[in-house]
Amino acid sequence: LLDALHRLGYPVVAAHLDHGLRTESAAEAQAVQQFAARLGAPCVVERQAVANYAAAEGLSIEEAARVLRYRFLFAAAEGCQAQAVAVGHNADDQVETVMMHFLRGAGLSGLRGMAYYSRPNTWSQARPLVRPLLGIWRDEILAYCTERGLQPAFDQSNQDTTFLRNRLRQDLIPALEAEHPGLRQRVWRMAEVLAGDYGLVEQVVEAAWEACQTSTGPGWVRFQRQELAAQPEAVQRHLLRRAVGYLRPGRRDFGFEAVARAQEALARPGRAGVSDVMGGLCVRVEAQQAWLATWEADLPLGWPQAPVGEPLPLAIPGEVQLGEGWVLQAERRPLESAAYDNADPFQAWLDAEAVTQPLVVRTRRPSERFAPLGMDGKTVKLAEFMLNQKLPRRARARWPLVCAGAAPAWLPGYRLDWAFRLTQATRQVVYLALRRK
Amino acid sequence: LLDALHRLGYPVVAAHLDHGLRTESAAEAQAVQQFAARLGAPCVVERQAVANYAAAEGLSIEEAARVLRYRFLFAAAEGCQAQAVAVGHNADDQVETVMMHFLRGAGLSGLRGMAYYSRPNTWSQARPLVRPLLGIWRDEILAYCTERGLQPAFDQSNQDTTFLRNRLRQDLIPALEAEHPGLRQRVWRMAEVLAGDYGLVEQVVEAAWEACQTSTGPGWVRFQRQELAAQPEAVQRHLLRRAVGYLRPGRRDFGFEAVARAQEALARPGRAGVSDVMGGLCVRVEAQQAWLATWEADLPLGWPQAPVGEPLPLAIPGEVQLGEGWVLQAERRPLESAAYDNADPFQAWLDAEAVTQPLVVRTRRPSERFAPLGMDGKTVKLAEFMLNQKLPRRARARWPLVCAGAAPAWLPGYRLDWAFRLTQATRQVVYLALRRK
Repeated sequence: LLDALHRLGYPVVAAHLDHGLRTESAAEAQAVQQFAARLGAPCVVERQAVANYAAAEGLSIEEAARVLRYRFLFAAAEGCQAQAVAVGHNADDQVETVMMHFLRGAGLSGLRGMAYYSRPNTWSQARPLVRPLLGIWRDEILAYCTERGLQPAFDQSNQDTTFLRNRLRQDLIPALEAEHPGLRQRVWRMAEVLAGDYGLVEQVVEAAWEACQTSTGPGWVRFQRQELAAQPEAVQRHLLRRAVGYLRPGRRDFGFEAVARAQEALARPGRAGVSDVMGGLCVRVEAQQAWLATWEADLPLGWPQAPVGEPLPLAIPGEVQLGEGWVLQAERRPLESAAYDNADPFQAWLDAEAVTQPLVVRTRRPSERFAPLGMDGKTVKLAEFMLNQKLPRRARARWPLVCAGAAPAWLPGYRLDWAFRLTQATRQVVYLALRRK
Repeated sequence: LLDALHRLGYPVVAAHLDHGLRTESAAEAQAVQQFAARLGAPCVVERQAVANYAAAEGLSIEEAARVLRYRFLFAAAEGCQAQAVAVGHNADDQVETVMMHFLRGAGLSGLRGMAYYSRPNTWSQARPLVRPLLGIWRDEILAYCTERGLQPAFDQSNQDTTFLRNRLRQDLIPALEAEHPGLRQRVWRMAEVLAGDYGLVEQVVEAAWEACQTSTGPGWVRFQRQELAAQPEAVQRHLLRRAVGYLRPGRRDFGFEAVARAQEALARPGRAGVSDVMGGLCVRVEAQQAWLATWEADLPLGWPQAPVGEPLPLAIPGEVQLGEGWVLQAERRPLESAAYDNADPFQAWLDAEAVTQPLVVRTRRPSERFAPLGMDGKTVKLAEFMLNQKLPRRARARWPLVCAGAAPAWLPGYRLDWAFRLTQATRQVVYLALRRK
């Protein structure tokens, strides 16, 4: 790859990570440096303790090496402002990759194999990962090396058949090819076709992501719950995988069971709840919202919040800020504007004569009661009413309550108090609305 | 399957096709009849010469048996107005199917395996094909048979390892499962996930089919060529496969190369042409249209056609029918309505003073010339002009020409004659339009 790119006139920088796993690795790193020097190409070499990292992160040696290697390559590319990171995967590697994904029952994103060009990729939003040799077979590359008098370094660990990839390379794929001539070629092409199909699926998923996902933050992705639940199962699976990819970049163990657990948590009707999914991630369901988040994430509320201490006075007309962009607004309006059959719980029309001033906004008091409209003046405990209305637990304590003097008048988002309802005798109305900017 | 459905209370009809391939097949057919009689279920048995059909159609024995078997089952279901056709594929069959598709490098539609429920399917638009046992493993079915005292007939040809499926069943899958425990389970689930993704791809393809395909007939599917060419390659591939599925139901050999040939024919710019694709199908490109069709299909023209004999008189105002829904219309219009920079070649404004009556519509005469607007009155042969304009060969002979008396005045869809152009001196206009209803 280095030789070919150099000959094609690309200003290449060689980058080599010494994984420190084999005794000869330092000598190999030196050989890379010498070869780069012969071409007059700058060379970045680093040594990292892959085995330690694997132990610390609970990853296999191969997986740990992969993560560290790509991080190193992209950091090196950043260091010299390279146009792209080019890696040497060839057509045989592609077939092995597809085969490995097949054996572990991977989905389309695995079976499509690697791509000639990936941007964005797991390691960078801006810098592409390219694989110029992806369509060239290993034999062709070895023939090129012979022709050019290049001595490739053979990694002895490639003989180690405790690694699945090596077993595939040495045993399974040659055996299958012998019995099904042309197999490698067919699998390679299949990957290309599946990559095209994956692109179509991504189109659908991208649109669904825009429709379902409402925001992301450190350690969390928030979805509109109904919207997510309404998606086909296959789309939900991709959205969850995408959210995991955002929260745990590079992790590839979000399997069938984990997806099924997350889907089950989302589908469970009624009560809010938290369900473990995998790798320190959970699904949290709260009213209209669903989160995929780390257990320790500090989730934004997304709800209005009344102040904990002194009630906030609300002038008529006037407005108060209730956090997270929520604004509560009051004004006097003509009687004709009143909706007797108001269907939006985030606005209310009150009989102005019942409204003793000043209006205030505060949290509910212990054991406080109110008379929800529609129950003929019967009162219930606010705490119980909130619970029955499935107001999420985290939202209850500081949910705003509008009071006229001491009396609860309106629980925004839920119900007007019976005493403030419009009647045939109403002559003037006070209009209240809670809106998010 | 028969025993279980019967016990679950379904009013089953047994149907068995004797493929006539093994000496014991007649005895097996009899055993099926006896078993059905014991359950009190009606039974339809037929014998068909699979080997003859395979030879006649150039199909493998297995493929021929599959086609005849499904045709027989759906005919039998039609005969007794059955609600569905149920077949006995089990979870092991599913894994084998996916494996076979993988080895032949099939796309998503193969890797997703078989479905629990298919409607429409290759054999019927209305009657579903169901596979109630698709999630049950072969061992579980054998255990059920033992428990119920049922003696399944073992097909001796299942031992014949010249058939790929049998080799997979006996050798490859057990070997892979031994080395990768849980493989069968994972492949089964992978198929389920891929089926979900295939559904998403189908959504995209369905929308593209509606946008690109303009009509179908016996032996042909017509596409709007630009629309088809503008689709992503992966979508084009699915549209072509769908068209092949329509023209050659049940054929499964529309491979990568055939798709590539068809895509190449569609992408080729300029001249019209016909390209062989596979199995007696060709791609035919003509101006705005592209066809996937059998070589012998009688393709509809889709163009306006002038009468072969006497010219058609066209009154002002008035209109004439030119076939395939095309209507040519003439009227006198105020000068202000004229477009001096007309961009639509299917309408024209003529200087009324130049228009000698009557207007007629006819085909071009041998060696006839006209003076296309934009060439300063220079004349060209109509035949050459049509060729240069890439008017499809099949359309040229009867393409309508509007003449004022003997003089060509307008070639609809292409150019006005210079003598009839609007000038500063024009006082009145004749408006002509060719439209498809």
